[in-house]
Amino acid sequence: SDVKKIAVLGGDGIGPEVVGEALKVLKKTEELFGYQFETEHGLFGGIAIDEKGTPLPQETLELCKSADAVLLGAVGGPKWDNNPKELRPETGLLGIRKALGLFSNIRPANVFDCLKEASTLKPEVLEGTDLIVVRELTGGIYFGEKFRREGANGEEAVDTCVYNVQEVERIVRQAFDIAMTRSKRLASVDKANVLETSRLWREVVNRVAVEYPEVELEHVLVDNCAMQLLRRPSSFDVIVTENMFGDILSDEAAMLTGSIGMLSSASLGEGSFGLYEPVHGSAPDIAGQGIANPIATILSVALMFRLTFGYHDAAKSIEDAVKNVLDAGHRTGDIAVDKSKAIGTGAMGDLIVAAM
Amino acid sequence: SDVKKIAVLGGDGIGPEVVGEALKVLKKTEELFGYQFETEHGLFGGIAIDEKGTPLPQETLELCKSADAVLLGAVGGPKWDNNPKELRPETGLLGIRKALGLFSNIRPANVFDCLKEASTLKPEVLEGTDLIVVRELTGGIYFGEKFRREGANGEEAVDTCVYNVQEVERIVRQAFDIAMTRSKRLASVDKANVLETSRLWREVVNRVAVEYPEVELEHVLVDNCAMQLLRRPSSFDVIVTENMFGDILSDEAAMLTGSIGMLSSASLGEGSFGLYEPVHGSAPDIAGQGIANPIATILSVALMFRLTFGYHDAAKSIEDAVKNVLDAGHRTGDIAVDKSKAIGTGAMGDLIVAAM
Ligand SMILES: CC(C)[C@H](C(=O)O)[C@@H](O)C(=O)O
Ligand SMILES: CC(C)[C@H](C(=O)O)[C@@H](O)C(=O)O
Repeated sequence: SDVKKIAVLGGDGIGPEVVGEALKVLKKTEELFGYQFETEHGLFGGIAIDEKGTPLPQETLELCKSADAVLLGAVGGPKWDNNPKELRPETGLLGIRKALGLFSNIRPANVFDCLKEASTLKPEVLEGTDLIVVRELTGGIYFGEKFRREGANGEEAVDTCVYNVQEVERIVRQAFDIAMTRSKRLASVDKANVLETSRLWREVVNRVAVEYPEVELEHVLVDNCAMQLLRRPSSFDVIVTENMFGDILSDEAAMLTGSIGMLSSASLGEGSFGLYEPVHGSAPDIAGQGIANPIATILSVALMFRLTFGYHDAAKSIEDAVKNVLDAGHRTGDIAVDKSKAIGTGAMGDLIVAAM
Repeated sequence: SDVKKIAVLGGDGIGPEVVGEALKVLKKTEELFGYQFETEHGLFGGIAIDEKGTPLPQETLELCKSADAVLLGAVGGPKWDNNPKELRPETGLLGIRKALGLFSNIRPANVFDCLKEASTLKPEVLEGTDLIVVRELTGGIYFGEKFRREGANGEEAVDTCVYNVQEVERIVRQAFDIAMTRSKRLASVDKANVLETSRLWREVVNRVAVEYPEVELEHVLVDNCAMQLLRRPSSFDVIVTENMFGDILSDEAAMLTGSIGMLSSASLGEGSFGLYEPVHGSAPDIAGQGIANPIATILSVALMFRLTFGYHDAAKSIEDAVKNVLDAGHRTGDIAVDKSKAIGTGAMGDLIVAAM
């Protein structure tokens, strides 16, 4: 059928609030474009721990598997921070990525004109910054064997970082494909001067590169990349890297744009299925107050339309609506210069829906 | 005897040039303060590969072991980049750290008034930034087992990250000690929500913290730290973290100060022995032209005086001299606004010596 099923996982903190506004956008899209969505809510993260005793209940996983895409709010909060591993929201995140085969995390970091001043970087340095970090999401040290043991010098802890050729190849190929749709520049980040997994990574990148002669490839060491992102952010286009480095660098890149409340992300596998979520966290300190910024989540819907459904018309309508509402001067508290004029989560959502 | 023996490893690229200026400073210190130094040169890095077939010749290691401190220029360059592992300059760096037991890397990142404008961060954000990254230097994924193997999905590479309680404890204790001499704030960086080594790390930090009730401790996740360094750099004082995270974060911190040509570092073990080097690299592109900035290396000598010899008077004399020369407007090319007025490596060294 042409009805697209979307699993909706509000999660914790401000998650359900911002997802609520994204649902208004889905509804408006149906009216405007005739697309049809069926949404079904699932428990995930801290709330699932509280209600079901696990951050990723089996029925939530089934729901996601039966859906065409997943819309996620945010998970986590101090309430669960000291729980044992199996009872932590992050364990649910890692679990859902693995269970759904979401090996690729796409993290655009671009600057919103009206938020240029929000960055701690000088505007002239930031000018033109528009990059995408493609992070490997189901391998590396996150998913390798972890354990404690007695060593010669007492207790020790071990984490294992493993990558096989196939895991590297699929993510690298995807990054090259994305680079081909943009300005054809790809930076592959590793620590090949120290790590064996990085040497394998670089070998695979160089092999795949032969198939993409038009793409200008540079290898950047991770420590150097952390510096170059600060020195010349606008010179990057697509950055591809392994799980742990991607975690660090995508957050650095997001923060330097000054637009962290506005950035969306996609986690993809083989095929068109994807999980979409804002880059920001669950912000427990402002949860329940109706003041969270829903824009990153609304833009995650636009990203879902582009990458999973191919609804480029509707995606553009959302993106333009966000731009127009911002250009008209409307701001939630996090991005308002004059906080006294800030509007709430619902008001921002309504304005964007009206502008579509 | 009271003659301090310093092993001098010029290394590659601009290394020997900047070290040459640091030697002038040593000589001047003898004249001014009556301290006595014996310096002996050793081959290390690329040049050692060329002349001895290994980046860390046995005689260089013996020289370092017989010395009270080591002054290192920089190593590496494109010439050796594609060598097999045993014939790469970085392998010498890792080897010397391990062989000399240098488990702690001290990386101050502070802003030089005259270089505030060189940073890509806004001056008001940078204002007051003066932090130290304490990086664990001989453990973790850098030194764990690394290998290739055939897996179910073809060839795979493995790196192992291991930390034992004692390794964590000694570096953490040192960081607390440093925090006590400063503003008594310590940020411990880990990824305890994912990694077992990070959970061990955090346990040890919390246990040691009990002995330092005056130190205000915060735990920061590594991805969040990469963001917070950008958002609020001046709020950090001492940051302590494991090897890989320290590699990335110390470079990010150095770059955001805008003063990377000016920053020095110390690698320490038990006792007073230490290896001192500038944070910048070997800059092969400008090697041999006499235009490199020697200040970071000269300040590394000041750091050596403070941390290894306790020559605080001489250290202060060097630091003040650098400040005065900069305040008088003298600049090497890398930090000059008007490049046509830039002075060379030797001229800068001479000015600093004269100002001591
Ligand atoms: C919560 C944590 C496990 C997660 C990660 O590091 O992958 C988060 O930081 C992210 O980037 O999505
Ligand atoms: C060259 C490399 C092995 C080294 C490291 O990562 O330790 C360097 O980046 C550094 O930080 O001293």
